[in-house]
Amino acid sequence: MSGTVEELEAGNEAPLSEEGSSVRISPELELPTEEDLLLAAAYVYDAQYNRNIPFETSPQAIRFYYLYNHWSMQIATYFFIFLDLSLALFEEPAVYPLPFLATSLVEVLCLCTFFGRLVQFAKVTSRTVFWKDTKNICILLTILLTLLDIIIYGTLRVFNIHSVRWSRCLRPLFLINFPESRQIRRAFRSIRNTLPEVLYVFLLLIFNVLMFSLMALKLFGDRNLKTVEGASYFTNILDIMFDLYVLVTTANSPYVMMPAYNLDWRYSLFFITYIVINTYIFMSVFLAVVYNNYRKHLKGFLLETSWIFFHFHFFSFAEMRPKLSVICYSQSFKVSAFPRAYMYLMQNEIRKLAYMKRHKMIKAFNILKTQEGPEFVVKEAHWKHLVKMVAPDISNSHRELLLRISDEEQKGYVDKKCFLRLADLLNIQVITMKFKRHPLEIWMPHVYKSSGSLFIQKIVQHRVFVWIYDVIILINAVFIALDEKNPFISYAEWVFLTLYIIEILLKLYTYEPKTFFARNQFWNWFDTLIIIAALMATIANTAIKSAIEYNSQQILDIIFILRLLRLIRIVDSIQRFRVILTTLINIIPTMLTFGGLVLVVYYMFAIIGMELFKDKVQFFSESSTDTHALDCGNPALKDSTFARSRYCKNNFNDLASSFIVLMELTVVNQWHVIAGGFALVTHEATKLFFIAFHIVVVILIVNIFVAFILEAFFVEYSLEKSEIETTIEKKIQELGMGIQEEDVPDGQLIDNMETNENDLSGGEEMQKQSSKGLFFRIASKRYRTVDALLQRMFESEISPEDEGPSLDEILNLSPSDMYPKNPTFENSA
Amino acid sequence: MSGTVEELEAGNEAPLSEEGSSVRISPELELPTEEDLLLAAAYVYDAQYNRNIPFETSPQAIRFYYLYNHWSMQIATYFFIFLDLSLALFEEPAVYPLPFLATSLVEVLCLCTFFGRLVQFAKVTSRTVFWKDTKNICILLTILLTLLDIIIYGTLRVFNIHSVRWSRCLRPLFLINFPESRQIRRAFRSIRNTLPEVLYVFLLLIFNVLMFSLMALKLFGDRNLKTVEGASYFTNILDIMFDLYVLVTTANSPYVMMPAYNLDWRYSLFFITYIVINTYIFMSVFLAVVYNNYRKHLKGFLLETSWIFFHFHFFSFAEMRPKLSVICYSQSFKVSAFPRAYMYLMQNEIRKLAYMKRHKMIKAFNILKTQEGPEFVVKEAHWKHLVKMVAPDISNSHRELLLRISDEEQKGYVDKKCFLRLADLLNIQVITMKFKRHPLEIWMPHVYKSSGSLFIQKIVQHRVFVWIYDVIILINAVFIALDEKNPFISYAEWVFLTLYIIEILLKLYTYEPKTFFARNQFWNWFDTLIIIAALMATIANTAIKSAIEYNSQQILDIIFILRLLRLIRIVDSIQRFRVILTTLINIIPTMLTFGGLVLVVYYMFAIIGMELFKDKVQFFSESSTDTHALDCGNPALKDSTFARSRYCKNNFNDLASSFIVLMELTVVNQWHVIAGGFALVTHEATKLFFIAFHIVVVILIVNIFVAFILEAFFVEYSLEKSEIETTIEKKIQELGMGIQEEDVPDGQLIDNMETNENDLSGGEEMQKQSSKGLFFRIASKRYRTVDALLQRMFESEISPEDEGPSLDEILNLSPSDMYPKNPTFENSA
Repeated sequence: MSGTVEELEAGNEAPLSEEGSSVRISPELELPTEEDLLLAAAYVYDAQYNRNIPFETSPQAIRFYYLYNHWSMQIATYFFIFLDLSLALFEEPAVYPLPFLATSLVEVLCLCTFFGRLVQFAKVTSRTVFWKDTKNICILLTILLTLLDIIIYGTLRVFNIHSVRWSRCLRPLFLINFPESRQIRRAFRSIRNTLPEVLYVFLLLIFNVLMFSLMALKLFGDRNLKTVEGASYFTNILDIMFDLYVLVTTANSPYVMMPAYNLDWRYSLFFITYIVINTYIFMSVFLAVVYNNYRKHLKGFLLETSWIFFHFHFFSFAEMRPKLSVICYSQSFKVSAFPRAYMYLMQNEIRKLAYMKRHKMIKAFNILKTQEGPEFVVKEAHWKHLVKMVAPDISNSHRELLLRISDEEQKGYVDKKCFLRLADLLNIQVITMKFKRHPLEIWMPHVYKSSGSLFIQKIVQHRVFVWIYDVIILINAVFIALDEKNPFISYAEWVFLTLYIIEILLKLYTYEPKTFFARNQFWNWFDTLIIIAALMATIANTAIKSAIEYNSQQILDIIFILRLLRLIRIVDSIQRFRVILTTLINIIPTMLTFGGLVLVVYYMFAIIGMELFKDKVQFFSESSTDTHALDCGNPALKDSTFARSRYCKNNFNDLASSFIVLMELTVVNQWHVIAGGFALVTHEATKLFFIAFHIVVVILIVNIFVAFILEAFFVEYSLEKSEIETTIEKKIQELGMGIQEEDVPDGQLIDNMETNENDLSGGEEMQKQSSKGLFFRIASKRYRTVDALLQRMFESEISPEDEGPSLDEILNLSPSDMYPKNPTFENSA
Repeated sequence: MSGTVEELEAGNEAPLSEEGSSVRISPELELPTEEDLLLAAAYVYDAQYNRNIPFETSPQAIRFYYLYNHWSMQIATYFFIFLDLSLALFEEPAVYPLPFLATSLVEVLCLCTFFGRLVQFAKVTSRTVFWKDTKNICILLTILLTLLDIIIYGTLRVFNIHSVRWSRCLRPLFLINFPESRQIRRAFRSIRNTLPEVLYVFLLLIFNVLMFSLMALKLFGDRNLKTVEGASYFTNILDIMFDLYVLVTTANSPYVMMPAYNLDWRYSLFFITYIVINTYIFMSVFLAVVYNNYRKHLKGFLLETSWIFFHFHFFSFAEMRPKLSVICYSQSFKVSAFPRAYMYLMQNEIRKLAYMKRHKMIKAFNILKTQEGPEFVVKEAHWKHLVKMVAPDISNSHRELLLRISDEEQKGYVDKKCFLRLADLLNIQVITMKFKRHPLEIWMPHVYKSSGSLFIQKIVQHRVFVWIYDVIILINAVFIALDEKNPFISYAEWVFLTLYIIEILLKLYTYEPKTFFARNQFWNWFDTLIIIAALMATIANTAIKSAIEYNSQQILDIIFILRLLRLIRIVDSIQRFRVILTTLINIIPTMLTFGGLVLVVYYMFAIIGMELFKDKVQFFSESSTDTHALDCGNPALKDSTFARSRYCKNNFNDLASSFIVLMELTVVNQWHVIAGGFALVTHEATKLFFIAFHIVVVILIVNIFVAFILEAFFVEYSLEKSEIETTIEKKIQELGMGIQEEDVPDGQLIDNMETNENDLSGGEEMQKQSSKGLFFRIASKRYRTVDALLQRMFESEISPEDEGPSLDEILNLSPSDMYPKNPTFENSA
């Protein structure tokens, strides 16, 4: 049995495996073979992460599948991709020049590893699937073209003929096309889908610019107006069009208007009309078009990056009583305030995912099923074995909870309906907050439990303790603002550092260290790391100073920045700020995808830019007495705005400079000056390079970014309203294992906790009765994304018996299939 | 019976009127008194337009209510408001100076009319309601304060003491506070509601700016860096904060970065981090916060301005067969793709409106009801009378259709359920497209129906005719781009003008003129007006030229602009462009509300700006030899960026200049130069004026504008998907009066049409049987707004018997009442 379309069509293997699994339909407990379990685990794994890798079902392919998915392999792939990309730093024009032989050897090495990765993938999947995938073909082609380019360039170099390493533009394709980069691919797909609509709006915009340019030519062309620089004003239609296109981006406002406005104030109406129509209305329409498409296509973005680690609120340290053994489920579903109609907008993508997942889970079920009375089920032992294989790193107590949810009536087996939910259950982020007694309490219980010690702990836990430190931070902020040269001030810095260290030590005295440094305690980590770094830097600086009587400026800068970062904590003390900050922290992982997107585009433009403009503009340091310092080493720039603004360092002479120039172009302001400067040293037509960059980055990518932030905040706002309980939450409540908001008397809880501790250490032995001491709670604030929700909603509408359309149909779902088709039942048990 | 809360509480009048109306519960047809009808009509009118004016029920008050709502009164009010506002043009510093006595007399006149309008309103409503309304108190206070200011200023002037006309800032309050300006008020309310959340984000932003400023001071302060102008770079914390705040708006990028970047490229990372966090993330968060609030509060905006006239698509002239007598309903409800969950987000505002409307309709019903069998109904005659009073300008056929919808089974009366819908039915925009035979056909049927004439008509109606003219326009565009001095080109312009005139004449020959110039034929109007204007201008120019041998440049400019505007028509020929254009045209009315909003804010800032900066900066024309021309007449500006950029005309020396400067500040680019210039001539602290303007206009208003455009396009996109039929559309189909997409054979239709024509001219006599010849069709593309839809959806959930909570409860609905309360039945029939 195979997950690929082709094999299903051929239909030759599927009955065989059905046969194979039906052999084991017997009431007695009989473990499936290791191979079957491996295959089932592979299906569940694939479903859990929505990976959609069509793997072969032979034992060898399955083993390759595990190898292929191993984290070390993925990290190695990314390492070589970034190594390949970073080669541009060492090639001419280089930041750190290396001989051509060295860089080309490294590049060939990278190409070899890419090829190896491809071979590995080919072993996992069938040949037909492999060759049907454009990604693989694209990688292969890129490898071949790059090799070709290296050979040609190397040969020509031997004969001292100048040529262009054009294949360097293709490098980002590796970043896009490996299966690990789904998010970036999705982003590009979304851009591609947006293009037609953006194009129409863009054409209208250009039409508009043209109209206004003609009007401007007519109105101002004959008046002999001069710009501030003394150039003729609005006399050439191409220049006017460029100027007015720049005005759309507002970069040359009000400069471009002034000569006409100085002549007669009524001419300003021309520019005001132009700005209202083009800058405000058209730019908003671009955002609307991009955003609208984003809502339809780009949601997967959030979907795939949403299994992020989550900072949870309901236990802030000030109020925390470290007496509960808690397994925190940091996921809950809040649907009520949610636009359900969204579902129709982008149902298809989601439905496809939901059906694919269902498909794989059914395959896994069919492998493991045994007959129990009238229905097929999966035995508890098999289920546990499977879960261990799929997610080897989850705790026993967690697995026990999942079993309890899957096998509600504790019948010793998991039925089909519950089994199909497994992939989702596994996706729920679990924070196991095992309570441990404070180490000091174990080592010297009498001292730790003495009244003095308890008093200290009580103070530290008190709200006022937090407030006092907030005030200290504020005072610290004032001191930072004061002049640091004053010895009193630098002495005060030592006092503050000591105070912060005392704070952390006190907290570590009061709270159990492992709880204090739990994965989700963002601010504890943040505080401690900053204080330790500051302490180390300060000591290093003092050591250096006493040794060589010289302050290292770098270290001082670092110390200063660390001091400032401490101030951020004050923001977290205020509830309203925390919500904003938490949302921002939550979207960081997705922003990394944008980072990838921007990297790809920047890299391509940087390579082209370097070929076009390298060494055309030179930078001379301020102190340089070279006469060329004033015209950036290029007479063409003499008296240009570019040179007068001292933009000489904004050049394409190496990768780092190129990226910085591109960043400046992304910010838009003054981009016409930069474009104008480079046009002067090369050719007027190179302005097209800058216009193309503006269209791609500012109109498309920045708008997608804005749309993404808007959507993230809207989701956050709508989730704030209310919530509904999930099955898991209900189950926890049913089991009586929920924690009430009210405190349970301390002594009783500690007893419970201790039973529980022993149970947890009991590992495999953990029995159902022991769970009386277990407490679960689902974190109440969770950043949940739109599609995960929708997928869930949609899945809840597929009955467990409905295995959905065939894989064929799923893969070919067209965007026009707005409503679910009648399900087909070919694979039903 | 009164619509006010207070009277309902007192409960003394209500039973009386119930009594009064129950007198008429008799089976025979007995017209209610004229007064009763007037009152009922007033209720329906109020419900139809959601006016919510709590009028008294005495006959005198009702008559005042009609007078108060009369269009002439409303226009007069607006005239005086704008007169009052425009006084700033004539007061010192003036564009056209007038003596103080003249302007103050006009102002007193305006104040008197405002007072009169207020007295009028006081007569309509009860005293308690009048004094409870903050709007009225606000207007009264403003009138008093303005009078006081005029007296004080006048007195001081007599003694030659300089003082400030501070009350001029208050003038926009009149624009906001009169009941006619609901939309602007709503916009301001929305801004007020957004403020707390914006404030928190803004504080975080400021905190961020402060943090980075401290860092910048530390990193760059000691390095003796110089800006391009030679000023010290990043040494003063206040200057750094201002520079970094400006960098958030991108206005001084990359200028502000260059000195540090020239020193070491790694310092650019500081600025890049800053820009990513503050410009991209924080500015998007502002948009998200404003947009989110907008979705909740500002929808009413669209709601109230949505009864706009609509350009309808389904009959483009190229395909139109002028043979159908059609009443076009330009409204249809398309719900399917619509986020129903929106409803929960802003249910309250909408529910309030829906209940208010229901309340008034029930009051009107109770006045007119007669008993018919077991239920209370409104007789057809009363109903017709009522409709005529409420909407005197709708056609008989339209009224007949409404009756048919309200009285489905033609029983001769309208039941309660249908009566309650009346306000909505009346709101449906009706385009009566009476077919008239072409006048030429009537005058000389033989010539018009001759084969030659028919051939011409066929050509004009053909698609190719449109294409030919599209090509002509394109050729015209090329000619416009060419140099106009060439006599051949200017001759060609005559040819084009002739061609366009021929086109219009041909179209008028083919299509019936009244149909051609129907209200909704935007492009026909557009074309014709432009051609006529161009013709007139060209003739005028020729006349002037031959008379005084001199081309009037103004007229030439106008001719040229008219020529260019003609080119716009080409855009309308392409379907995809037309959709975008239509959406843009549709949102023009709502954009006027933004115009009002911007006017209010600009006016206030302009008045303050004029007081602060008047005559501090002087403009000298280019040719001026005055030595002050280089420093804008102010030595403080010598060598400043402001003067060097020749920004001298960007000043606050009169209202027009102030508005243009404020526009430039809205566009943001170079705003720090303008702010810096004015800070030099006055005081550093005046930068706060510019920062305040930036916060109010760019962060709040521009974001609301962007949110509005986004929402308008989203609605348009979601409406494109699919549609469901309305009750009216269903009724039309049921009656068999719908027009199929297929053509009905011509002859038959003409027959029908002619019967119909006669019927229509029959006026009052129109009987049910005549409607066989009537055809209705609902326009298929309609810009519908979110809330109207939601209100409808919500209303459909109130059963006709449910009169909703009492008025009290409605007015006090708190935002937390997310679900409908149990209805109370105190008023039930």
